[in-house]
Amino acid sequence: MTTWQNKYAERMDGVNSSIIRELLKLAQVPGLISFAGGLPAPEIFPIDVCNEAATRLLQEHGQQALQYSSTEGYTPLRQLIVEKLNAMGMNFTVDNILITSGSQQALDIIGKIFIDPHDSVLVEQPSYLGALQAWKAYQSEFVTVPVDDDGIDVDAMEEVLKSNPKFMYILPNFQNPAGVTLSLERRKKVVALANQYGIPIIEDDPYGELRYEGEDLPPLMALDQELHDEDDGNVLYLGTFSKIFAPGLRLGWVAGPTAVIQKCTLAKQGADLHTSTYTQMLLYEVAKDGFLDEHKQVIRRVYKERRDIMLEGLEKHMPDGVTWTHPQGGLFLWVTMPDHMQAREVFDRAIKNKVAFVPGYAFFPESETGYTGHNTMRLNFSNANPEQIAIGIERLGNAIRNS
Amino acid sequence: MTTWQNKYAERMDGVNSSIIRELLKLAQVPGLISFAGGLPAPEIFPIDVCNEAATRLLQEHGQQALQYSSTEGYTPLRQLIVEKLNAMGMNFTVDNILITSGSQQALDIIGKIFIDPHDSVLVEQPSYLGALQAWKAYQSEFVTVPVDDDGIDVDAMEEVLKSNPKFMYILPNFQNPAGVTLSLERRKKVVALANQYGIPIIEDDPYGELRYEGEDLPPLMALDQELHDEDDGNVLYLGTFSKIFAPGLRLGWVAGPTAVIQKCTLAKQGADLHTSTYTQMLLYEVAKDGFLDEHKQVIRRVYKERRDIMLEGLEKHMPDGVTWTHPQGGLFLWVTMPDHMQAREVFDRAIKNKVAFVPGYAFFPESETGYTGHNTMRLNFSNANPEQIAIGIERLGNAIRNS
Repeated sequence: MTTWQNKYAERMDGVNSSIIRELLKLAQVPGLISFAGGLPAPEIFPIDVCNEAATRLLQEHGQQALQYSSTEGYTPLRQLIVEKLNAMGMNFTVDNILITSGSQQALDIIGKIFIDPHDSVLVEQPSYLGALQAWKAYQSEFVTVPVDDDGIDVDAMEEVLKSNPKFMYILPNFQNPAGVTLSLERRKKVVALANQYGIPIIEDDPYGELRYEGEDLPPLMALDQELHDEDDGNVLYLGTFSKIFAPGLRLGWVAGPTAVIQKCTLAKQGADLHTSTYTQMLLYEVAKDGFLDEHKQVIRRVYKERRDIMLEGLEKHMPDGVTWTHPQGGLFLWVTMPDHMQAREVFDRAIKNKVAFVPGYAFFPESETGYTGHNTMRLNFSNANPEQIAIGIERLGNAIRNS
Repeated sequence: MTTWQNKYAERMDGVNSSIIRELLKLAQVPGLISFAGGLPAPEIFPIDVCNEAATRLLQEHGQQALQYSSTEGYTPLRQLIVEKLNAMGMNFTVDNILITSGSQQALDIIGKIFIDPHDSVLVEQPSYLGALQAWKAYQSEFVTVPVDDDGIDVDAMEEVLKSNPKFMYILPNFQNPAGVTLSLERRKKVVALANQYGIPIIEDDPYGELRYEGEDLPPLMALDQELHDEDDGNVLYLGTFSKIFAPGLRLGWVAGPTAVIQKCTLAKQGADLHTSTYTQMLLYEVAKDGFLDEHKQVIRRVYKERRDIMLEGLEKHMPDGVTWTHPQGGLFLWVTMPDHMQAREVFDRAIKNKVAFVPGYAFFPESETGYTGHNTMRLNFSNANPEQIAIGIERLGNAIRNS
C-alpha cells in the first residue's frame, strides 16, 4: 500500500500551518479578549442590504448566478473595479482586471506564475504572513528590508535590489502587521528604484480605503503608470472586498498590464476554473449603485473609535519603555517592548490574563522559529468592541509589567 | 523597467489556455447548437429553494456567513458530506473531509502537494482536461492507459504501474470525456494493483449520483477501505456539488486519510484561506433536510431524456462507420469516426452547420497539438434542450457525411 509520507512534493517541506493559527488554538479560553486575529467587526456587516441584493439577484438573474462563468470574472464587477481604481489615479480597462477568490488567491497565483525554486522575493520586515506562506509553497526564499514609521526603508532597499530579487512585495497603506504607511516621498523612490533595477512591484492594498486621518496618498501603481505607455508598467495591484464589505464572500482582484493578467488568468483556470458566479454577482448587486461608498463611512467611524480607544489604553497602561505605532487607518498596530523582553513569554502570561495578541516574530520570514522581532507584537483593533478594547489593553499592560 | 516575459517561472512554460476555451471562441455563431461545453441545464436550477435558503441564512446566521471561517470548511456541511459518502459504502468522519472551491481546486491542491517537476502521473486516455491543465502547472509528465467500454484497461495499467508514477487518476463513473463506466471486476483489480504497487489513486467522481440506468457500483474508495485499518488507505476521493446542485457556487470536496487531508488543508490555506463561508452555509441550508435527494430525481429525469434523444439521433443520422459510447449516466458521450477522418476538420464544417463539439484530441495529454484521437469527439447532452439536440445531431451527421 501507499506510504503517503514518501509521496509529497519537495515544495511542501517548507509549508507549515500558520503560527497565528497554532497560537489561536492556545487562546480557546472563555472570556478571552482577542487582539490576535484580523477579523472585521461582524456587527456592522450590512446583512439587510445583502439579503435584498440576494433576493433581487436570484429573481432576476438566478440561472446565470448559479451557472459556470468565465475565469476572468463577471464583467460588470470588473468594470466597477476599473471605475474605483481609475478614481484613485490609475488607468485601467476591464482587460486589466482578474477577479480572484480573495486576494489570498492573487498571492498564490503570483507565486505560481513567477517563483522558481530558490528565487528570492523582497519583502518588508515585518510582512503579511499569508504572502510568505503562499510563496514558500513555490520554494521561494526571502530577502528583507525593514519598515519604520514611514514604511519600507528605501535606502536599505536599494542595496537589496542589487541582489536581483524576482519581485518586491509592498503593503503601502496601514501595513499588516506594523500599521505604518509608506510616505509620498518614499513611494516615488520605490517606483523609481523598481524601474531602475527592472524589479516588479506587487502592491497589496487591502486597507487603503479605510483611512481615519490624513490624506490619501497615490498608489504605487498610479505613480508607475505615469512613467509608462498605456497598458504597460512595473506593478501588479491587489485589492479585496473583504475589508469594505465582507470577507466571507472571498472576493478580491489583481490589476496590471493585460499580458500579465492573461498569464494570471491561465494560472487561475487550473486553480479553480473561476470564482463563484453567485458571490461575484451578489457583490455587484450590492455595490452597483454606490452602496459601498456609504458603508465605508460606517466602517471608518467604527474602526477609528476602536483605534483611538486602543491608543488611549496603551498610553494609560503600558509601562515605560514600551512603544507603538500610530496607524492612520487599517486594522492593526504594532507594539515594541524593551529589548530584553520576549513577546512569546508575554503571550503565555497574557492568555492567563485573558487577552491575546500575535507575537511579532510570526511576521518575520527569516525567523519563524527564532527570535527576530522577539520583543514585538501585533494588535488588531477592528474586531473587539470599545469596552473589550479598554479592558483588554489594561490586561495586556499587566501581563507586560509582570513579565 | 520590467520585462515581464523574462520573469515567469519555468512551470508556466507548459500551461496553455484550454483548447476547449479557444475552440468555443470560434463557436460564437448566432443560432449555434453547442454540444461542446459541460454545462448543467440552467432551467432546472432550483432558484426558489436557493432564494428561500439565502433569506433564512442571512436572517439567522448573517454575521457568520459573511465572516472569515476555517480552512477545513463549514463543519455541518462536512458532516453532511460524511453522511452522503458513508451511505455510498465509505467510512469517514468530518476530519476526513476538506471543502474545496470546486473540485478543480482539489485537483490543483493534489498537484501542489504531490507533484515534483518531471514526476509522471498515470491518467486515462482520454482524460479530464482540467486535471491535465492543473498538473502541468506543477511540471508533471503523463503516462496513459486507454479506456474502453468498461473503463480503464487494467492489463495495460499494470505494465504502466511498473514505471512508478506518482499517482493514478481515475474517473470511474460516466467518465469525462468518454462517458464510460469502470466495471466492478476492474474496480477490484485497480484497487488491488494500487495496493500492490503502492501507487495512490485519485478517484474523481463528479457524476456518480447521476445514473440513468443500471446499478450503482462501489467507489474505489469503498473497495480500498475494506483492505485497510480505519483512517488509512490508498485513495483520495473527489466530489462536487456542481452537478447535483449548481456549479456557480464552486463547492467541492476531497476525502481521504486524515493525515493527507491535513496536508491538503495546509496547501489550501496558502491558496485562498478558505472557501466562501456564505456559499458553504447556503448549500448546507439548501441541503440539510434532504432537498438534493429530491432534486437529483429531477436532474436524472431531464438528462436521461436528453441522452436518449441524442442516442436516437446518432442512430438515425450518423453515417456508417461512426460509433459512439452508451453512457449509463453523466453528461457526455464519445463519438469515434472512421480512422481516415479528422475531427478538427469536421469541427470547422460543423460550425458552418451551426453545431459545435469538442474534438477528442483535446483530451489526450500526449498530443494536445497532434493527432492522437484525431477521429474522435466529445458530445455533451445536458445543456441543450431536446429539440436542439435532435436538430444538432442531424446537423452533425451532415457535417460528418460531407467531410
